[in-house]
Amino acid sequence: MPERNRQVLLKRRPEGMPAPGDFEIVDAPLPEPGMGEVLLRGIYLSLDPYMRGRISGQRSYAKPVEMGAVIEGRVVGEVMRSNHPAFREGDFAMGGYGWQLYSAVPGNGLLKLDPAEAPISTALGILGMPGMTAYIGLANIGQPKEGETVVVSAASGAVGAVAGQLAKRQGARVVGIAGGADKCRYVKDELGFDAALDHRSPDLGAALDKACPKGIDVYFENVGGAVQQAIFPRFNDFARMIMCGMISEYNDTTPRPGPNLMSVVRKRLRIQGFIVSDDWQRYGEFRAVAAPLVKSGQLRYREDIVEGIDNAPAAFIGLLQGKNFGKLLVRLSADPTR
Amino acid sequence: MPERNRQVLLKRRPEGMPAPGDFEIVDAPLPEPGMGEVLLRGIYLSLDPYMRGRISGQRSYAKPVEMGAVIEGRVVGEVMRSNHPAFREGDFAMGGYGWQLYSAVPGNGLLKLDPAEAPISTALGILGMPGMTAYIGLANIGQPKEGETVVVSAASGAVGAVAGQLAKRQGARVVGIAGGADKCRYVKDELGFDAALDHRSPDLGAALDKACPKGIDVYFENVGGAVQQAIFPRFNDFARMIMCGMISEYNDTTPRPGPNLMSVVRKRLRIQGFIVSDDWQRYGEFRAVAAPLVKSGQLRYREDIVEGIDNAPAAFIGLLQGKNFGKLLVRLSADPTR
Repeated sequence: MPERNRQVLLKRRPEGMPAPGDFEIVDAPLPEPGMGEVLLRGIYLSLDPYMRGRISGQRSYAKPVEMGAVIEGRVVGEVMRSNHPAFREGDFAMGGYGWQLYSAVPGNGLLKLDPAEAPISTALGILGMPGMTAYIGLANIGQPKEGETVVVSAASGAVGAVAGQLAKRQGARVVGIAGGADKCRYVKDELGFDAALDHRSPDLGAALDKACPKGIDVYFENVGGAVQQAIFPRFNDFARMIMCGMISEYNDTTPRPGPNLMSVVRKRLRIQGFIVSDDWQRYGEFRAVAAPLVKSGQLRYREDIVEGIDNAPAAFIGLLQGKNFGKLLVRLSADPTR
Repeated sequence: MPERNRQVLLKRRPEGMPAPGDFEIVDAPLPEPGMGEVLLRGIYLSLDPYMRGRISGQRSYAKPVEMGAVIEGRVVGEVMRSNHPAFREGDFAMGGYGWQLYSAVPGNGLLKLDPAEAPISTALGILGMPGMTAYIGLANIGQPKEGETVVVSAASGAVGAVAGQLAKRQGARVVGIAGGADKCRYVKDELGFDAALDHRSPDLGAALDKACPKGIDVYFENVGGAVQQAIFPRFNDFARMIMCGMISEYNDTTPRPGPNLMSVVRKRLRIQGFIVSDDWQRYGEFRAVAAPLVKSGQLRYREDIVEGIDNAPAAFIGLLQGKNFGKLLVRLSADPTR
């Protein structure tokens, strides 16, 4: 075991698109686990769009990352030492302990992982927060009915891929929107969506009209911007807009105007936002539904794994630019289960 | 009984604010009731903001009024002759039979009114479609909890006045927005809202901050425009925006931009539109709640009555300009119950 920890700190609050200089990578002493804590060696760090909000100073549902602090993030790791009765050396666990190689964290905040049930990395993706986000958004807001048309943006991403596959299993016609031909091919051919549209195509509106001949009943919103503008006028009466994120606008320094809301009355639309952590008590329910489907291959996923914590800032910037293809993870150290 | 009917027809689809020349007033033969029909003499015609949408050609939840046709509207009238077993001469009834003095209409589509229960005009206002609109918007979308802050725009209007009084009865702090000092005084002193703000005040945002020190939990949206812009950034987490109407924008020829929707995610807002006719099967439930409260004076209302069908177009244009004060009605003929 190396003697030193390594951490990524917030050096400067980004203005617009984050830059490498907003982050600082430092060595630090190995932490010492206290009473009820365990020492975890990180294996995978999850990079997720919501983190853009955390490193800005704006008021939000969660406290922002402090200047000079380790940047927040979920990690899957291996227990090196344990002062908690539920964990033993060699156990695998998931918890939110930030962009760093090692952490001493309370055992009570960790989810123990069984590598026999699913690859441990899935606890950060399809069986973790992103998959649960897709599940809760559909369950609480979208509620697609058989035969309805569901559109999912960022459809090859960690949330969108699950949202579309779950909606398809519920009997909906599912249309994905993704960036570029490779992602579109993946969404249609590997994830089994009914159609996939490239958001860079010259006339997304016309493409939507063709892919959604009966209009749009549910939209799982992950991106905002021009995609949102193309979707909004195509809603059917009683359509639901699941407001999960608007990644294309996260680096805007002044907010863009949104859609005129008159059609919300006329069409009786429901536009509703949610944050998955509000429903975290339903994680067991979600996992009971999703884990067997992942194991049997009925729910598919793709990971985009970047090597080494020093590459985390650049990978995160790439995520905000849509450069990743699948759930973005940083490998902090070798995965002994693969 | 006069020998002739008198009707207001749609002569031209208005561009922007309707003009008197968009309407044509004609005499017509007295209609003859057929099998199952009754001949009604109109007493009150209801003028409501939704009619602006009906006389435009745009796709909506209901078919537009045809060119040259009688303009749609609800009327309270007296039965002159009846070919329907449920109605007798001298009965009072409410139904949707348009801007005209007489109509021969199927008895099955009429609601019989008991003048002893409430003034017959209330079937067009506080105990009719507008009151029911307030009730359904609160019941289905707003669901104010005790101690929450509810803001109602067009608060002295037919819908807003009821929405605010019902929310107050549910234990909310209720703030009304209305146009001018007289309406604000009425909203606060006579309807019993906790505060009333003039939408013409130079800084509505600051006035809202003062009147809503704990933020806004429910907004009953009737007006759109600058009021909507002032409300939107002041929502609390989990706030509900009841999308009932946006009268200040009904005459726009190009839609204005709306609010950026990023805060819908962050604050988990719910923005939902509704049309009262979707829930018409609950009219009995509404009336059972509201009629006793009207009778006992616990639900208050105000009518703005214009004399004579020839003044209907000008009164309707005034409604779109906020010139009415209370539920706007046109007296088509003398009310024998007053």
